Amino acid sequence: MVALETTPNSLSSLAQQTQNAAKQLAILSTQQRNEALSAIAQALSTYQDDIITANAKDCEQAKIDGIPEALQARLKLDQNKLQSAIAGIEDVAKLPDPIGTTQINRELDKGLILKRLTCPLGVLGVIFEARPDALIQITSLAIKSGNGVILKGGKEALNSCQTLTQVIHNALAETDVPPEAVQLLTTRAEIQELLALDQYVDLIIPRGSNSFVRYIQENTNIPVLGHADGICHIYIDQEADLNKAVTLTVDSKTQYPAACNAVETLLVHQAIAKDVLPLLEKAMTEKGVTLRGDQATRQILPQIEEATATDWETEYGGLILAVKVVESAASAIAHIQTYSSKHTEAIITENSNLAQTFLHQVDAAGVFHNCSTRFSDGFRYGFGAEVGISTQKMPPRGPVGLEGLVTYKYQLTGDGHIAATYSGENAKPFTHKDL
Amino acid sequence: MVALETTPNSLSSLAQQTQNAAKQLAILSTQQRNEALSAIAQALSTYQDDIITANAKDCEQAKIDGIPEALQARLKLDQNKLQSAIAGIEDVAKLPDPIGTTQINRELDKGLILKRLTCPLGVLGVIFEARPDALIQITSLAIKSGNGVILKGGKEALNSCQTLTQVIHNALAETDVPPEAVQLLTTRAEIQELLALDQYVDLIIPRGSNSFVRYIQENTNIPVLGHADGICHIYIDQEADLNKAVTLTVDSKTQYPAACNAVETLLVHQAIAKDVLPLLEKAMTEKGVTLRGDQATRQILPQIEEATATDWETEYGGLILAVKVVESAASAIAHIQTYSSKHTEAIITENSNLAQTFLHQVDAAGVFHNCSTRFSDGFRYGFGAEVGISTQKMPPRGPVGLEGLVTYKYQLTGDGHIAATYSGENAKPFTHKDL
Repeated sequence: MVALETTPNSLSSLAQQTQNAAKQLAILSTQQRNEALSAIAQALSTYQDDIITANAKDCEQAKIDGIPEALQARLKLDQNKLQSAIAGIEDVAKLPDPIGTTQINRELDKGLILKRLTCPLGVLGVIFEARPDALIQITSLAIKSGNGVILKGGKEALNSCQTLTQVIHNALAETDVPPEAVQLLTTRAEIQELLALDQYVDLIIPRGSNSFVRYIQENTNIPVLGHADGICHIYIDQEADLNKAVTLTVDSKTQYPAACNAVETLLVHQAIAKDVLPLLEKAMTEKGVTLRGDQATRQILPQIEEATATDWETEYGGLILAVKVVESAASAIAHIQTYSSKHTEAIITENSNLAQTFLHQVDAAGVFHNCSTRFSDGFRYGFGAEVGISTQKMPPRGPVGLEGLVTYKYQLTGDGHIAATYSGENAKPFTHKDL
Repeated sequence: MVALETTPNSLSSLAQQTQNAAKQLAILSTQQRNEALSAIAQALSTYQDDIITANAKDCEQAKIDGIPEALQARLKLDQNKLQSAIAGIEDVAKLPDPIGTTQINRELDKGLILKRLTCPLGVLGVIFEARPDALIQITSLAIKSGNGVILKGGKEALNSCQTLTQVIHNALAETDVPPEAVQLLTTRAEIQELLALDQYVDLIIPRGSNSFVRYIQENTNIPVLGHADGICHIYIDQEADLNKAVTLTVDSKTQYPAACNAVETLLVHQAIAKDVLPLLEKAMTEKGVTLRGDQATRQILPQIEEATATDWETEYGGLILAVKVVESAASAIAHIQTYSSKHTEAIITENSNLAQTFLHQVDAAGVFHNCSTRFSDGFRYGFGAEVGISTQKMPPRGPVGLEGLVTYKYQLTGDGHIAATYSGENAKPFTHKDL
């Protein structure tokens, strides 16, 4: 395997190189991009031994450095994980092409045709953590959507990422996609530099801890796709079905406690609190979850810890759940409006009118009724791929699939049409007829 | 007319008040919002004398202060302009409701239904210049889209804006829309403060000079809808029809030279330059346009001024046009890629393959073939209303109608569905069936 010679003397010129490659990539056909994905999949199979060897080196070093075991597990890229990442590339190839879609096709006047077509954003800057398989997934999504990508993986995964990038570069060299469309940064210092390259980079996707994402958001003028906090609430209404309430809360907390869509605060209507809380406490204890309650909760469950004000604004990301008894659905909504990170908020009730009010009034990317907060996810929503979850108000919001990696442009075609014809006293009217 | 008592002691509490009012506004029906628009239209008619008197005071002061005549003309709100603004409110009322639209309606599994529905952004911060009729238009668009709005008009229009806001507040007091959903700031110092209120304000829309918009973009974490520069190009290809080339360029430059979609730089293929440039020079001179040319242009038109490097990056906003002779369509595209502000770029050619290449390769919100750049406008595109033109890559891009004032949320309704059912070895598959 021969390393591709691309060593620009600065990050800025590397980014410019990526932008130029992205421009070539942007105008390739669906087939050309899909063929590049197949070539990458095949090369990753061919060179799997090199990749696994490089990864083993990273894993060994991680052990020596005493890196936490959970991180070591994410870092490890064995044959199974690699095969599954390769299968993921084939899945991405099968997804509908997100670019070239006609969103508007409108006659403004005879012979003056407006089209709005989706097109790639340009260059993505993706900063991720230990998992080297993330590099494979991100690269395939970038190529599918016609975007160049500048990748920065965790330093623990350096050997793995370098080998993967080399294999990808060599594979692309045999396709119509310029290898320079995919670039790897290797030092932490480069992140800061990358954030300033708004001339070349069109979207930053940070994957990491809350504080890391917040740091990125606050230190760049480039749009950022992602979210810092995921403080999700469940409100158990007085008209909730007790079994559903317990089952849904347990699933929302324990199905994957580290996920951003796991529940962190439970709000319980006072009229049902003494019925549901003991059942919940039992179920949660079985799952190893620690409850922290406000005063009213602790009157019913005196053995649990006290929840203080900071609990309402904490994403535990683990097996702790804050519990508060509320006077009414309105108080629950008010608590949510105050502390929500606008990720996912759920109500459990058999009162469908109240459920409608909750779904209508609560401002969050996901508003759920009688189901687990854990469904807030691009794959579960049927997007085929997830590039991130956004808690910002402006679209794309919530779980974002390939549509988050494209933009659009307006193409207007005429035959000598001038604006003066449609202005002033004898202005010709537009037809504005959708075709 | 009685002034509404709303004097919060800080901008932050005023913004919070607007946010609370916006939450009430957000859940009103289409009819309730349209009724509020009618009430405003009626009140503006009823109190037209008060409004025109207040405006006359502003105009008088503007004359004393020696404000430029063009600005004085924009400031003036006579009966005609007021009637036309009132008619504009009725037009907005007739537009389709941008909120509550179902974008996705999908069964994830039996009884687990995902919907993506459009909803208001929350609170808009709109900073505009002298024209008091802008306040009327913006307010009606905000109410139509279910958003609260904090307005800051030019200081020249202070009396006009205060009277208009008072009339609007009194009108809203008789409707279901809380008057606090519309607020007016009166001092320039408040702009700086407004830009820091990302907790309460969801979108800033600046309407003003390029440098002002750039200042806003660089000094807030709130998303900004707008554009700084509008450096639009026309490329006249060697296969252009000469008459079309001249007519389209004249219209693009002169139909409204101050507009952001007016052409600033003309690129001419060398093979056609000596045919088209003299015709163009004659037509432009008749319209009072000064040409500035590069060396090759001045070999054909020796009498015109020299264009220096800074001309390629200048938005004249007036009757000057920079002209450059290029070797090929590729050189034209390369020049555009370097200097474009990604607003609107046009090609004039009878070669439809080349036109397709241009539309495909040039990265701008608008890419035009054989028509005037002046068509780049929300009304001309048939959006009914324009809230701004964005030159950013991420959507909304280009002319933005009401869709730029809404976002969406995902509503998921189940009946006790938990994520565990769809995970692990015996995972139940999702149906992902669009309904």
